[in-house]
Amino acid sequence: MSLTLQQQLQHIIDHKTKPLGALGRLEEVAMQIGLIQQTTKPVIQHPHIIVFAGDHGIATTGLVNTFPQEVTAQMVLNFMHGGAAINVFCRQHKLTLKVVDAGVNFDFSSNPVDLISAKIGYGTKNYLNEPAMSVAQAQQAIDKGKAIVAETAASGCNCIGLGEMGISNTSSAALIMSAMTGLPVVTFTGRGTGLNNDQLQTKIDTLHQVYEKHALSELKEKPIELLARIGGFEIAMMAGAYLEAVKQKMVVIVDGFITTAALLIANAIFMAEKQKSLVSDWKTLIDHCIFAHTSHEAGHEKILGRLGVRPLLNLSMRLGEGTGAALAMPLIQSAVTFLNEMASFESAGVSNKE
Amino acid sequence: MSLTLQQQLQHIIDHKTKPLGALGRLEEVAMQIGLIQQTTKPVIQHPHIIVFAGDHGIATTGLVNTFPQEVTAQMVLNFMHGGAAINVFCRQHKLTLKVVDAGVNFDFSSNPVDLISAKIGYGTKNYLNEPAMSVAQAQQAIDKGKAIVAETAASGCNCIGLGEMGISNTSSAALIMSAMTGLPVVTFTGRGTGLNNDQLQTKIDTLHQVYEKHALSELKEKPIELLARIGGFEIAMMAGAYLEAVKQKMVVIVDGFITTAALLIANAIFMAEKQKSLVSDWKTLIDHCIFAHTSHEAGHEKILGRLGVRPLLNLSMRLGEGTGAALAMPLIQSAVTFLNEMASFESAGVSNKE
Repeated sequence: MSLTLQQQLQHIIDHKTKPLGALGRLEEVAMQIGLIQQTTKPVIQHPHIIVFAGDHGIATTGLVNTFPQEVTAQMVLNFMHGGAAINVFCRQHKLTLKVVDAGVNFDFSSNPVDLISAKIGYGTKNYLNEPAMSVAQAQQAIDKGKAIVAETAASGCNCIGLGEMGISNTSSAALIMSAMTGLPVVTFTGRGTGLNNDQLQTKIDTLHQVYEKHALSELKEKPIELLARIGGFEIAMMAGAYLEAVKQKMVVIVDGFITTAALLIANAIFMAEKQKSLVSDWKTLIDHCIFAHTSHEAGHEKILGRLGVRPLLNLSMRLGEGTGAALAMPLIQSAVTFLNEMASFESAGVSNKE
Repeated sequence: MSLTLQQQLQHIIDHKTKPLGALGRLEEVAMQIGLIQQTTKPVIQHPHIIVFAGDHGIATTGLVNTFPQEVTAQMVLNFMHGGAAINVFCRQHKLTLKVVDAGVNFDFSSNPVDLISAKIGYGTKNYLNEPAMSVAQAQQAIDKGKAIVAETAASGCNCIGLGEMGISNTSSAALIMSAMTGLPVVTFTGRGTGLNNDQLQTKIDTLHQVYEKHALSELKEKPIELLARIGGFEIAMMAGAYLEAVKQKMVVIVDGFITTAALLIANAIFMAEKQKSLVSDWKTLIDHCIFAHTSHEAGHEKILGRLGVRPLLNLSMRLGEGTGAALAMPLIQSAVTFLNEMASFESAGVSNKE
């Protein structure tokens, strides 16, 4: 009787020169990547971080944010000039960084930079008054996200982390988590970039009002409609990106709070379209992903618990940009490397447990 | 009024292009390293992992261990041949790995390898019957540990993680933690490399017996005597290594369970000798150290809580060898790199919080 791939991987892991299970979470990651790549000798090739930026109409109200909307565009330019945290960490770990204008309220056309232009609009509409975008725009963003990842995969990349930039996008993420779980929006509403107590209460009240106005409780199984009502262009595009990355059997690293919201959308689309056949070993899209870190943003730990996943890092970070994914990359590489490079008890002539 | 170094560092950290505090633990590490190196522009130079190996007489009884004593020597050879987990992670992160024979029960003289020979003896004596070593040997090991680190510092290294290998050394570590904290030895007694329930109970009973026999409860402030009764050569040598590393103002990364026990010894020596003047900014040796990971070995989390420290990683690992320290190294480097390389709001033209 031949061993399954999972059994083969477990055998290799268990016979490395270490006590059984002594590499803890790294052993789980090694197993997961082996199963994703369907091999006992996985490799990480040309890892990428792709940062999607978009603006949110709600930011112009100042009801949910402390930084002004123009910071989204300013930070995109900071990414292009190499000065942001994600630039630093990508340089450190030799990760290719791509930045996508998914819908920033700024015209970058005069900037001679390698920004990927995928602008769906100059920011979403203010969902306090009207839907953030049309269903067509939500679908367009998803398709664009898929195309960007397909192109990245075609260039030889098999490991991807997504990141985001968008003033007020914690609000959109909280609304998505609330709609998807049925838990009150307050559960997922945090201080974002640094609200004080009064500002936090205003954010909670505002999001509660938005939740009721758009009847979000009815949209759990209508992810694209949900995106249209309260989503962001960058969130929609990341949802498409996750769908394509899993289809391409990439190692997918989920960053933090907003990326997790995008993953929930992607997973709902995945389930709705019954695309399970694309990745027959995975019951859900979630199972395919490696969670990088627990964000300090209130609600992330709760949604992670709900999903039954445990990220690799917990550094009280809440920066976005894909920074958690970038910092987790060396651990993911360590998992692959110990699997490929460590000696076995037999090869090293070490006595195993008696 | 000029700013203190701490205030200067905080100002730089707070004006990077990110929300206040958004890099979480990395900001704390950046501050700590800046204070250790007494600069706003710290650097990590030639980071090393030094693994100290030693044998324990108690291992020959089989009362506290499942792997036989000869595995210590076999693993040292595995280190020399590059096949162990610590080799893999050091290669990955370009860390220099040094391996020290602190007292392995094997003659390595015929092995043409760059093992550092610092053998105090061919393993300690069985502390179930007699003291593990003489006080003179304990002091000799401490001095040797200091000398090895002094030499490493002189070679241009300013960042060091210690690791260890020694069958049964979780027992010695548990006894040290118990003696130092006054908590029962069972609190710190775990499954080591994989004891079952019956074996664990035998280990607990054995260590309790040893604790009483050697009157360890009276040795809290006599760290060298404590080492002599139940220590290991590798633990004593690491204690010396920690003392010297702090004196040299190195960035010191503490690995896991056994290294923490060695640090407790070092700290007790530090306090006893009132060497505070060596590092005037640090109340204890502990404050100077960066804790890499929470070991899965029962008791590590408890001792960390007792010390009031929170490691960077929690990956359910329990391998030793310095593997946790090696895996934490990229995060420590990230802390330094964001401090040095990230743009400020001003330099990047990004609007700060209103």
